[in-house]
Amino acid sequence: MSDTTNDTEKRELGQDFMPKFDAQGLLTAVVLDDSTSSPLMVAFMNEEALAATRESGIAHFYSRSRGTLWKKGETSGNVLTVKSILVDCDQDALVLRCTAAGPACHTGATSCFYRKLEGDTLFPAIS
Amino acid sequence: MSDTTNDTEKRELGQDFMPKFDAQGLLTAVVLDDSTSSPLMVAFMNEEALAATRESGIAHFYSRSRGTLWKKGETSGNVLTVKSILVDCDQDALVLRCTAAGPACHTGATSCFYRKLEGDTLFPAIS
Repeated sequence: MSDTTNDTEKRELGQDFMPKFDAQGLLTAVVLDDSTSSPLMVAFMNEEALAATRESGIAHFYSRSRGTLWKKGETSGNVLTVKSILVDCDQDALVLRCTAAGPACHTGATSCFYRKLEGDTLFPAIS
Repeated sequence: MSDTTNDTEKRELGQDFMPKFDAQGLLTAVVLDDSTSSPLMVAFMNEEALAATRESGIAHFYSRSRGTLWKKGETSGNVLTVKSILVDCDQDALVLRCTAAGPACHTGATSCFYRKLEGDTLFPAIS
């Protein structure tokens, strides 16, 4: 958060991967289905989760509620295989384009984004 | 973060919009281009930013660096008009499907996700 102008320029325009973790040590990861581009889920990564994801090619996150490394699909088998990683301008958010072995959502839905807001009410989203 | 089982069920399966702000009072907002589904940017919303977005139909966020409400495009004119809002299972992340009046990124790029990580190096992403 206290980058110099030079750091900012390097981070935004350079070729070096310089992931920027926030005050909680996290960055945001958005998972899109690699074939349909549909949003599947949003989660957070700390340094360990990012390293595990890059090493294994399988999405790992940091569970804010449990305070631990979380290999998505570890128990359900519904892992996310990372096909490519996009990095945003200030390198504090990633888009993971993935293929999903099964429903991405713990509710059993294909995507966590299964509802659409209309007025004050949530309706099933057609994805 | 201390929902009862009943709250969790209501939040995950119900029709009520019950946005869940984190310890910092924020939720994550992912902006997708409504026509192409390409990811444009990721930002955060506090209660005020969410209310302003819903009232105006124009994306507003909370700037973590400035600590203020941020109407995206206020100075550049590159506003994001919200076409629909998707809500995730635990209601702590939103997907805003938007039409962009101009480049979504402050660097002038169409999307903030203009680079792809390959090995340790960032390359221009073809979007």
